[in-house]
Amino acid sequence: MSRCFNFSAGPANLPLEVLEKAQRDLVDYQGTGMSVMEMSHRGKDYTAIHQKAQQDLRTLMAIPENYQVLFVQGGASTQFAAVPLNLFSAARKADYVNTGAWSKKAIAEARRYGEVTVVASSEDNTFNYIPELSPEHFSKDADYVHITSNNTIYGTCYPTLPETGSIPLVCDMSSDILSKPYDVSRFGVIYAGAQKNIGPSGLTIVIVREDLIGQAQDFIPTMMNYQTHADNNSMFNTPACFIIYMAGLVFDWMLANGGVEAMGKRNQEKAGILYQFLDQSNLFKATVSEADRSIMNIPFVTGNADLDQQFIQQAEVNNFKTLKGHRSVGGMRASIYNAFPKEGVEKLVDFMAEFEKSNS
Amino acid sequence: MSRCFNFSAGPANLPLEVLEKAQRDLVDYQGTGMSVMEMSHRGKDYTAIHQKAQQDLRTLMAIPENYQVLFVQGGASTQFAAVPLNLFSAARKADYVNTGAWSKKAIAEARRYGEVTVVASSEDNTFNYIPELSPEHFSKDADYVHITSNNTIYGTCYPTLPETGSIPLVCDMSSDILSKPYDVSRFGVIYAGAQKNIGPSGLTIVIVREDLIGQAQDFIPTMMNYQTHADNNSMFNTPACFIIYMAGLVFDWMLANGGVEAMGKRNQEKAGILYQFLDQSNLFKATVSEADRSIMNIPFVTGNADLDQQFIQQAEVNNFKTLKGHRSVGGMRASIYNAFPKEGVEKLVDFMAEFEKSNS
Repeated sequence: MSRCFNFSAGPANLPLEVLEKAQRDLVDYQGTGMSVMEMSHRGKDYTAIHQKAQQDLRTLMAIPENYQVLFVQGGASTQFAAVPLNLFSAARKADYVNTGAWSKKAIAEARRYGEVTVVASSEDNTFNYIPELSPEHFSKDADYVHITSNNTIYGTCYPTLPETGSIPLVCDMSSDILSKPYDVSRFGVIYAGAQKNIGPSGLTIVIVREDLIGQAQDFIPTMMNYQTHADNNSMFNTPACFIIYMAGLVFDWMLANGGVEAMGKRNQEKAGILYQFLDQSNLFKATVSEADRSIMNIPFVTGNADLDQQFIQQAEVNNFKTLKGHRSVGGMRASIYNAFPKEGVEKLVDFMAEFEKSNS
Repeated sequence: MSRCFNFSAGPANLPLEVLEKAQRDLVDYQGTGMSVMEMSHRGKDYTAIHQKAQQDLRTLMAIPENYQVLFVQGGASTQFAAVPLNLFSAARKADYVNTGAWSKKAIAEARRYGEVTVVASSEDNTFNYIPELSPEHFSKDADYVHITSNNTIYGTCYPTLPETGSIPLVCDMSSDILSKPYDVSRFGVIYAGAQKNIGPSGLTIVIVREDLIGQAQDFIPTMMNYQTHADNNSMFNTPACFIIYMAGLVFDWMLANGGVEAMGKRNQEKAGILYQFLDQSNLFKATVSEADRSIMNIPFVTGNADLDQQFIQQAEVNNFKTLKGHRSVGGMRASIYNAFPKEGVEKLVDFMAEFEKSNS
């Protein structure tokens, strides 16, 4: 067994201890005589896994009592429709902030169901910053305000959450959930695909304030209605059991390693190493302005596409995998989620320094 | 490691070879330095897994060229809405056959979007048979006819497919897909949750005739539209990569073991052993009339609820797990999908014979 340094933007790196635990129990889970993949979702063994994962997520994020934690399927892309279909009042109005490709998709989908105002955008500069937002940006009659807290492709992150007053704040937190402390009570709905900080792809987490459940549009598909899953403890139909089990192992690992606060410190430190290098380098530079930098996804360029390509190829050979940037930004991107080891960032920086020396 | 005989109705038994292979490769997939769970879905390693799984399913089911194979999420319950939202014309009319709890759910969801005629039902007798159907049962102006080929809870299965002429036949094949040869060209749409004959839960297969794609209702969520997934090779957003990988391993196993035809023979044989025992037993009896019996799910009772309970408990102790019947039928249910070994059925029958002897 040899492990690489995997900078994938998602599905992404998982903690080695978690993978090894899953491997040990894969064929016979704790003496049950079956794999978790083979268990009835109504049986006591799986039910215990399901409940513990929910409870551990509550603990990790300090989720208040008046919020439901839902385990659903379909990715954040399904939530792009589920959010308006669950939260729109009869007036069907919402404010969205456009900070990248995923915001745009969320906006386009919500527009199919109601009136969407894009109250701010950073599209004018390839989404390399987060727009300044003050309370007067928001429409008084909006059913909700939607943001994307961390932008996987562009490597930006809100330095502070916008103040939306009594209007529920809805957040696509796919790429920075659990990466640092967030005050859940600031949000109406948080949703996130699992495949960055939580576990393998195929699970979507929805954290929803209870008073926002039960007012869905008439024509909402039953499986998109938050009420369906809240009323059935996310067991209305067969959930993605094995993925939930894996997420539970990741939650265990996080709790054993100091929880979200410790993750935040570690992530700051990891990102700091890379940003510090980028800010002093004569070859590489970060693409995002300092105030709005993500600690999860760090895009960088040399300014020369051929040299970028050369760097990516040499990195690959040296066991630094999936460093190619998204086609809309170009260059490189290092995604360093919770499970990504500090050692990998340090070694990357050493490698970059060497590459810089031989190319100057 | 010790393995039990797992009669779960789903998630269900997987082939031991498949689990062992997944276990070996869990931390480092074929020298890539990462788990399949950690791979970018856009990378070459995962892409190869994805394409091979699609192609192998095409081979196994002899799926004609003019059908698309979609890997989606949300279970059959999501398809209960997706089917009408994709297939309804402006008239929004469909015929449904009611053969059990899952048919009823499909009917209820479709009724939210259009006019549904229940053309036949077996509810009058606890769904223990399949209604006779002839072409004149079906409405001439129906957009489609919907059936549930195998009824997991009640243990019934269509002995022959209904003739619907030019009206597309839509089938929830969740609990008997790949269990025996089906002529795909007889169907407009086949859909199935993976967690019985295909792999772990969290994946839904949709096989759809191309001319039925592209006529969805205006308000359909993008993620429910078959067009979205057909146009993007089921990669519009991050798919349930690890579950698709597991399904691919199961397809490999099936191909190596003679394909669907061989599975069908083996399943007939396995089910035959249990039915033969039930038909001669003075204690146990099958609940379904002979012509409509499922070879996947076999409910049986003693006629005495206390004795049923006793049997289930003793079976559990003897390593026969998850034999409790669904609450709506009571008694016992042996689900013996493709991966369930013949040896397990033989041992169950021996155990039942012994139980009968000591309780007569």
